[in-house]
Amino acid sequence: MKAYLTRRYRFPASHRLFLPDASEAENQRVYGKCNNPHGHGHNYALEVTVSGQLDLHGMVCDLPRLDAFVTREVIERYDHANLNHLPEFAGKVPTTENLGLEIYERLRSFGAARLERIRLEETRKNSFEIGNMLP
Amino acid sequence: MKAYLTRRYRFPASHRLFLPDASEAENQRVYGKCNNPHGHGHNYALEVTVSGQLDLHGMVCDLPRLDAFVTREVIERYDHANLNHLPEFAGKVPTTENLGLEIYERLRSFGAARLERIRLEETRKNSFEIGNMLP
Amino acid sequence: MKAYLTRRYRFPASHRLFLPDASEAENQRVYGKCNNPHGHGHNYALEVTVSGQLDLHGMVCDLPRLDAFVTREVIERYDHANLNHLPEFAGKVPTTENLGLEIYERLRSFGAARLERIRLEETRKNSFEIGNMLP
Amino acid sequence: MKAYLTRRYRFPASHRLFLPDASEAENQRVYGKCNNPHGHGHNYALEVTVSGQLDLHGMVCDLPRLDAFVTREVIERYDHANLNHLPEFAGKVPTTENLGLEIYERLRSFGAARLERIRLEETRKNSFEIGNMLP
Amino acid sequence: MKAYLTRRYRFPASHRLFLPDASEAENQRVYGKCNNPHGHGHNYALEVTVSGQLDLHGMVCDLPRLDAFVTREVIERYDHANLNHLPEFAGKVPTTENLGLEIYERLRSFGAARLERIRLEETRKNSFEIGNMLP
Amino acid sequence: MKAYLTRRYRFPASHRLFLPDASEAENQRVYGKCNNPHGHGHNYALEVTVSGQLDLHGMVCDLPRLDAFVTREVIERYDHANLNHLPEFAGKVPTTENLGLEIYERLRSFGAARLERIRLEETRKNSFEIGNMLP
Repeated sequence: MKAYLTRRYRFPASHRLFLPDASEAENQRVYGKCNNPHGHGHNYALEVTVSGQLDLHGMVCDLPRLDAFVTREVIERYDHANLNHLPEFAGKVPTTENLGLEIYERLRSFGAARLERIRLEETRKNSFEIGNMLP
Repeated sequence: MKAYLTRRYRFPASHRLFLPDASEAENQRVYGKCNNPHGHGHNYALEVTVSGQLDLHGMVCDLPRLDAFVTREVIERYDHANLNHLPEFAGKVPTTENLGLEIYERLRSFGAARLERIRLEETRKNSFEIGNMLP
Repeated sequence: MKAYLTRRYRFPASHRLFLPDASEAENQRVYGKCNNPHGHGHNYALEVTVSGQLDLHGMVCDLPRLDAFVTREVIERYDHANLNHLPEFAGKVPTTENLGLEIYERLRSFGAARLERIRLEETRKNSFEIGNMLP
Repeated sequence: MKAYLTRRYRFPASHRLFLPDASEAENQRVYGKCNNPHGHGHNYALEVTVSGQLDLHGMVCDLPRLDAFVTREVIERYDHANLNHLPEFAGKVPTTENLGLEIYERLRSFGAARLERIRLEETRKNSFEIGNMLP
Repeated sequence: MKAYLTRRYRFPASHRLFLPDASEAENQRVYGKCNNPHGHGHNYALEVTVSGQLDLHGMVCDLPRLDAFVTREVIERYDHANLNHLPEFAGKVPTTENLGLEIYERLRSFGAARLERIRLEETRKNSFEIGNMLP
Repeated sequence: MKAYLTRRYRFPASHRLFLPDASEAENQRVYGKCNNPHGHGHNYALEVTVSGQLDLHGMVCDLPRLDAFVTREVIERYDHANLNHLPEFAGKVPTTENLGLEIYERLRSFGAARLERIRLEETRKNSFEIGNMLP
């Protein structure tokens, strides 16, 4: 029988939301306070869900291996970072949705279990999910 | 790629659970303390999940627009309310399940993204989900 | 050496805030939505802190004894209750502050350890403490 | 319309992770500190999700009936237990995954609503889901 | 009898920790990743505790009045802000400790109840308290 | 001005509560399920509060230094441990109260700020505080 493992990580980061090609008034209308000139930040929580048949050791996958992979691909890159200064957000607004898509792509190649979905919490009131969801 | 946005709201309300047509003994057996004559209350937490392709602004949908819609359709109606005195619960027991169905119907016409499901938390131990779930 | 034990309980209840002698306009100004005519409710969380030297069993006090005392004095009385209909709130507004004072008085006679203070959480955003605090 | 009810339970228990047939070095490599000789423990949180059409009483199912079933089948068995000493884990590593499979099997025969899935939280960072999930 | 009211607020903000007069190596040694050049951010949670005798309305103080005061003095200033660009942190490192001192000073003049202390949560693992504490 | 820093740590461990000199009936009466023969466990949360004037860097104390001290003195010793097998609990019941006293003593010699108190959470419903509290 298959089981789903969800592992939770945390990292603080900062961003400013604005479209370089839009007018200041347009950016203010769309992004409100998130468009404040010097940026603001969040304590992001990331949940990674992988699935698989249990192995000989009674586990979905080796946990240190998952942690090492997520740390190398995601945490080391985004922990204490200013998202606007990263190349993957050149010409793209670093909304939490876009950050989520980026993280999902970075985690797809995990070899020890099947990546199902990620959930990225921006605040206690806002979260985003990407991956295998209902059609 | 599609993303799912979940937004969390809170509102306190009160209710009393009983079937007007049932005997007092029957109501006591079915609803226990929830049948106490003058009602009791909860801090409800409501999570609304909508989905969509990211728009030009890198978002599932405009958040202030979602908030305005949920506030007008749900929060203004149920915040600090006694559910038993609302017309939609005339002849219907205002269980959290029935409140959830009512909220789901009220939110279906949201135009800026697809309503997927709602989750209504009655206490830390009890929650209900309605909408697109597994078959 | 002394230790402080804090034990957490939960109970839902409902109340309506208004001063019978005040005008409707005055009640609306002071209590806002909390003055809605049929009441509303909360999931209250109660934390009871007691202190003492550790006994032979390595404990501040016998936990089942504390639970039985708090259940008899507080939980059985307020769980699933409408506070406005209780005699101790006749002529008194059942604010969470006043409920806290009432609970504190009810718990003072606990014999197995010293009652230090109580904390009563109305919502995640509001809580009240009563008892031995800083001068 | 169908609704999903999720109910949350908690129980502390202890376990030691090791394969009797594997060498000490192998067990240390796979399980790390979880292989410490005298075991360690967790406060497990169990979420049980059942679904159904709302009944006459406006409920997915009778809550005391669900609680009695889960208590008899799961809580009484695993609350304050050392998992390694239970017969179902003879020859099987009592990982939280395996405990989850065992709990899922024990809950399948619930008659008052359809068991959809369980979620077992080992720590705030780790949880497992078993049951009706996406394909 | 006196009661203590604690009210919780949330605001995201960003900061970069470094001493302008210190060498880069020194800043890196002291602040680690918090010294990353473009800053990072947090979802701050602020708890404000005030005390007083209950008034005629059964309250420590008028809650909308407290909210308006904290919003004007603190939230409007720090919500979605980059702390390094604010005049009060010119020549001062915007650590959460220093932000806490600044917030405490801004709240001292509240007239409707006695300010006791503030608690500022930077992450789930770190918090700071300032005000009337034990000697 | 002084500030108080509280830092949160987590570690799972297991224990069995019983007095070797007491009869089985007596142990059962006092400790109930906590006396189960093979032990059970918890995810302990430890909060360490230290205080001090802010230093040149705007901090109560160097956080990595505090973390290293707590890790060496407490976490490495109790993480994934069975408390009953540790020498400090020979002839002493490893209740969470006694574990708290032990942890408090181990942390007193911290040199970079004043240890004020510790708080040890056994479950969401139970916690213990030791140190500088109200008289």
